[in-house]
Amino acid sequence: MTEKRIKIVEKIMNANDQLATVNRQRIEAVKAYSINIMASPGAGKTSFIIATIQALLNDDVHMGVIEGDTAPVTIDSDKVSDAGVPVIQINTGGECHLDALMVNNALDQMDLEPLDLLMVENVGNLICPAAFQLGTHSNILIASVPEGDDKPYKYPNIYRGLEVLIINKIDLLPYLDFDMEYFQKGVEMLNPGLKTFPVSCKTGEGMEKWLEWLKAKIPQK
Amino acid sequence: MTEKRIKIVEKIMNANDQLATVNRQRIEAVKAYSINIMASPGAGKTSFIIATIQALLNDDVHMGVIEGDTAPVTIDSDKVSDAGVPVIQINTGGECHLDALMVNNALDQMDLEPLDLLMVENVGNLICPAAFQLGTHSNILIASVPEGDDKPYKYPNIYRGLEVLIINKIDLLPYLDFDMEYFQKGVEMLNPGLKTFPVSCKTGEGMEKWLEWLKAKIPQK
Repeated sequence: MTEKRIKIVEKIMNANDQLATVNRQRIEAVKAYSINIMASPGAGKTSFIIATIQALLNDDVHMGVIEGDTAPVTIDSDKVSDAGVPVIQINTGGECHLDALMVNNALDQMDLEPLDLLMVENVGNLICPAAFQLGTHSNILIASVPEGDDKPYKYPNIYRGLEVLIINKIDLLPYLDFDMEYFQKGVEMLNPGLKTFPVSCKTGEGMEKWLEWLKAKIPQK
Repeated sequence: MTEKRIKIVEKIMNANDQLATVNRQRIEAVKAYSINIMASPGAGKTSFIIATIQALLNDDVHMGVIEGDTAPVTIDSDKVSDAGVPVIQINTGGECHLDALMVNNALDQMDLEPLDLLMVENVGNLICPAAFQLGTHSNILIASVPEGDDKPYKYPNIYRGLEVLIINKIDLLPYLDFDMEYFQKGVEMLNPGLKTFPVSCKTGEGMEKWLEWLKAKIPQK
């Protein structure tokens, strides 16, 4: 019985991965770069997306955002839309992560042709999103310093599958007991050499280096 | 097909609820009070448990803790054990929530007889734990002010099933844009009259009122 159950799970995962590959092909066909932004609730995913939009709009980068939300509220989508970028919202209906099918359906609703950069905001969760590839070029985690320095040790799976780590809310470091060395030691164990950008979306500190990295990834059309 | 699938899901939920009832009976048989503590990663669940332990040890309250962790690390369990209270750790093996069966197995490992208060620390997640009753007397959520004031609107399900809300890290309020009125309006919509305690586990502010409420719930033996 156990063996049979494992086989079914594998089959579901493969269906997701196959659809993720289709998503990637659709994004690459229009020469866009794409990122999947994951984090705990309240780590600053939307603030990070908006800070990125505000910086790149001046550079004439055409952006689109897919917003994943577990509840049918448009708080984040409204903020992104107000920043001047087209946004498609996925309501997961209580589900705890995005999957490749949801993103595929969202891509159907977007005008992909002009896109240079697609940002996908996943559901706020450090566990479940780690198991589902969406087809984006990079998986990005926003760790937030008020969450504490032990998170890589406690939520290892999400750290293992990352291309980029953002450490947000560094403006709060003076008011917290956050041991950066201990945090980074945990990250290094799970994902050696992981590209890391400490930032504050509130003050703008550190965003320049992230934007430099991102701009180098966006294909020239 | 859809109808059949819904029936299976209902059956699983009922199995969990039935086992939750068994857990409750086991806890009540020894005249203990029990709480299920849920929160985002890093909201301060373990700090809150330890602050509660430190206050109640002097009052000769016999406590026990069940620690839910998605990874096999003993960071939180070590802290609770160091505080002088017996702890049983549940490694969920990547699972994103505790369920009644896991708690039932943990109860088998505990010396229940002397217990006055059982505290269960759920996995750090604002979505999945909301769907699984554990059999405890109260479901408690720790919301943390750095997470932002929009969380009730975005993660409504977990707020609907609460008996108590703790608002933690209020010492950070001067450094954050957190609109307490907007936050509490969201909570009130979902769970009118919800018992709420704003606290700082770091400074101890507000803990007295929580402890007063809790002590009144613990049965006299």
